[in-house]
Amino acid sequence: MEIALGELADRLGVPLRGDRDARVSRIAPLSSADATGLSFLGDGRFRRHLESTRAGCVILSGVDADACRVPVLLSDNPYLTFAEAARILYPRPPVIGGIHPSAVVDPSAHVDPSAWVGPTCVLEAGAVIGPRVFLGPGCIVGEGVEIGEDSRLVARVTLCAGTLVGKRALLHPGCVIGREGFGFARDGDRWVRIPQIGRAILGDDVEIGANTTVDRGAIGDTLIGDGVKLDNHIQIGHNVEIGENTAMAANTGISGSTRIGRNCTIAGAVGMAGHLEIGDRVHFTGMAMVTRSVLEPGSYSSGIPAMPSADWRRNVARFRHLDELARRIKQLEIHIDTMNETTGREAT
Amino acid sequence: MEIALGELADRLGVPLRGDRDARVSRIAPLSSADATGLSFLGDGRFRRHLESTRAGCVILSGVDADACRVPVLLSDNPYLTFAEAARILYPRPPVIGGIHPSAVVDPSAHVDPSAWVGPTCVLEAGAVIGPRVFLGPGCIVGEGVEIGEDSRLVARVTLCAGTLVGKRALLHPGCVIGREGFGFARDGDRWVRIPQIGRAILGDDVEIGANTTVDRGAIGDTLIGDGVKLDNHIQIGHNVEIGENTAMAANTGISGSTRIGRNCTIAGAVGMAGHLEIGDRVHFTGMAMVTRSVLEPGSYSSGIPAMPSADWRRNVARFRHLDELARRIKQLEIHIDTMNETTGREAT
Amino acid sequence: MEIALGELADRLGVPLRGDRDARVSRIAPLSSADATGLSFLGDGRFRRHLESTRAGCVILSGVDADACRVPVLLSDNPYLTFAEAARILYPRPPVIGGIHPSAVVDPSAHVDPSAWVGPTCVLEAGAVIGPRVFLGPGCIVGEGVEIGEDSRLVARVTLCAGTLVGKRALLHPGCVIGREGFGFARDGDRWVRIPQIGRAILGDDVEIGANTTVDRGAIGDTLIGDGVKLDNHIQIGHNVEIGENTAMAANTGISGSTRIGRNCTIAGAVGMAGHLEIGDRVHFTGMAMVTRSVLEPGSYSSGIPAMPSADWRRNVARFRHLDELARRIKQLEIHIDTMNETTGREAT
Repeated sequence: MEIALGELADRLGVPLRGDRDARVSRIAPLSSADATGLSFLGDGRFRRHLESTRAGCVILSGVDADACRVPVLLSDNPYLTFAEAARILYPRPPVIGGIHPSAVVDPSAHVDPSAWVGPTCVLEAGAVIGPRVFLGPGCIVGEGVEIGEDSRLVARVTLCAGTLVGKRALLHPGCVIGREGFGFARDGDRWVRIPQIGRAILGDDVEIGANTTVDRGAIGDTLIGDGVKLDNHIQIGHNVEIGENTAMAANTGISGSTRIGRNCTIAGAVGMAGHLEIGDRVHFTGMAMVTRSVLEPGSYSSGIPAMPSADWRRNVARFRHLDELARRIKQLEIHIDTMNETTGREAT
Repeated sequence: MEIALGELADRLGVPLRGDRDARVSRIAPLSSADATGLSFLGDGRFRRHLESTRAGCVILSGVDADACRVPVLLSDNPYLTFAEAARILYPRPPVIGGIHPSAVVDPSAHVDPSAWVGPTCVLEAGAVIGPRVFLGPGCIVGEGVEIGEDSRLVARVTLCAGTLVGKRALLHPGCVIGREGFGFARDGDRWVRIPQIGRAILGDDVEIGANTTVDRGAIGDTLIGDGVKLDNHIQIGHNVEIGENTAMAANTGISGSTRIGRNCTIAGAVGMAGHLEIGDRVHFTGMAMVTRSVLEPGSYSSGIPAMPSADWRRNVARFRHLDELARRIKQLEIHIDTMNETTGREAT
Repeated sequence: MEIALGELADRLGVPLRGDRDARVSRIAPLSSADATGLSFLGDGRFRRHLESTRAGCVILSGVDADACRVPVLLSDNPYLTFAEAARILYPRPPVIGGIHPSAVVDPSAHVDPSAWVGPTCVLEAGAVIGPRVFLGPGCIVGEGVEIGEDSRLVARVTLCAGTLVGKRALLHPGCVIGREGFGFARDGDRWVRIPQIGRAILGDDVEIGANTTVDRGAIGDTLIGDGVKLDNHIQIGHNVEIGENTAMAANTGISGSTRIGRNCTIAGAVGMAGHLEIGDRVHFTGMAMVTRSVLEPGSYSSGIPAMPSADWRRNVARFRHLDELARRIKQLEIHIDTMNETTGREAT
């Protein structure tokens, strides 16, 4: 969409320094933008491009404004303003209500007239599709599922029976919400499945990545709070609870019944054991292995960063005997203490 | 389903202490159940709720029975009895035979009249669907696939050509069984795909989680034993063999040609190298990195649990020099030995 | 397919030692092949089977030829020759052009007459399907997607709007290419999605495994080079670039904007942070945690191999204090130096 800088500034609620009538129509990097391009300066690394940029407009903070020779939108949070500007330049097309003839809709399902049900979708008994919901091709909406207004299922999303999805959700292809979780009792060596009778409940403004799975609760429900953002390939076990605005990067797995607080950030490929309690504003770095509850806000890490394989082999061989090494250090200390006592000198 | 406690006790084969005519209709937690609810006491953590529970009945072991004022079902294995009771209270609806008109069934496929083929399913040439099999929406059943009686494909399951599924399987949405595995020969820098002509064969009572993948064999077959339970997002490489009743939690990956024994439990996000041999009753804890064969039964672990990031950074920096640290300890020991010899005292 | 050894040798361009008219029709292991079977000797482990094999023909290198009593195809690279022979014996059936009546094809999509669009596929506006492309059942091809000639989408592949796929691609079930990546700006505690306007672009001869995800670029494009092979469950973040012929095993995740060179091999369950630069011919072993750029060719590793859980617990407890242990070693060294100085002896 093309927009005049003046109108853009007004809609963003930020000051413009430059020609209100100049127009931009797309997002582009600072270094390669032309006059139709809107850029932003997010961090210092790209500041060197400011003087030479040919962008139609740059979003930046006050300290950087003087270095820039093209029109400027001033913002205390340039990245956020950029996000909002991008949403203005690239609006989602409005949802046009209707049901594609190839979709299979149970007579007892209710689809709001303003919602779109795409090709080859399947809606089972009692499903409720709210206003302006968009179901892309191949979505499966199980029995009794409810989807709140303005939610968008991009394509091939599976919502198992009983799942509740709030407003403005964005669900990516291949995600599976509300399948029966991994619950078994042992009968000798044999496993007996325990019916999973809880639901998966997603709050408002939730985003679920491609091929991510959220299992339904065993007895109670699995709860995904408002504003939670999950990346691709994430596993959320049964009865997990995730607090508002917590974000999780790809390949992370959360075992059953763990409760995670609000405003946490959990990087990629993190693994959490079950039945843990994670407080608010706890941050885990990539590949962290979380085996205990963490209540204190802060950043937590684990794992061994990669090194040349030959070095790694040597160090790992020593790790296998780390406890023994520690004991040998202790022995040396005792020994030296004894020697010092014998010779009348004091140990450190 | 509502059921009288007497009938429930009879079907479970356990003694009832309480009114045979009282009825329960659902599973509920000990703390919040009302008179319609059946609860259980699995472990000691919830024993404090026993005295005050208002559940209609509680499944527990003899030692806990006296503390409970409501009807009791006595069991040596309360969790197993609970699982069986839950299956009675929440029976799967019986499969009603038929083929949804939107399904695409090759004329050479054979569907037992008692099986259900759901909306938008695709059955390719020569597929054989056994009695009382349930195919939920969007399942793809490739050429020559056979599915044993009473198996349930929840939705959007993909069975690639030649896959065999035993009886009573439970296959969750998004799983992909029998795709051609990752087999290439090098031609200089270029990779040349090797046709994968084996099959994926699933025994009886197998469960495959959402978005889990089981690759077909390269020459021989990939074999998943009877009673194996796989959680979500698991990768099973070509020619892997998994013994009976082994269970695997989410995000775990098993590389090609590794053989795993019976009755193993493999926790989440474990990684196994290829061509390994894992014995029976071997247990791996979460995120274990398995690089060698393990024949001895027992529990095995690896990984570094998360700690505050600042501590982690300091410790990891030392890990990079662990081999050197070990050499320095050895030097110190030699030194002290020498000093002791010099001074005529004996080393520890 | 059955083929005479003479013709097979000619097509493979390797010498045959044996009867040109003898025929083989399938691939089989050295130990169990009968006279219809073609085998190969890839590595020394199976050499003992050479004398006794009853295979119709064996592919092997010159040094092994004399030990073999059955016909032999001589090759400097037996595994590669085997791969090529297997492709001759198990040719893909030719694609027969057409559109299944259950497919939903937008009038503005262009499907080459020689391409096949399978049952329940959905092709959106402006999609372009090249010559001899095969779309198995349930594929979703988004707006403006282009697929190059001879590509094969096995089943249930999702290509999001704007994705470009080169020639001879092999895309496995459940993969999702070109979804909007994980890009958000913070607005206080709230996350604001940033429109992802780049594309996912796959070169020629690319293979994408089952349930693997490749996100579209945020502003620029995500680029998968010619000949890249990705296994199952891989996550490729937005704006990642992967050089030619790099191969990646299952469960690996590459965070946004990381650039990987050519001819790299990345084993299973590796995790890479974002914005890294990985050079050509860099190899990572399984579960490696890559937190820094690696420009030097070579092999890199990390992680702690599994050990008995009791040993692991003891060693891990020490790891938590590794920095302190290192300081204690330093103290001991200083101490001994001091003692040596005091006693007039020299430190090592």
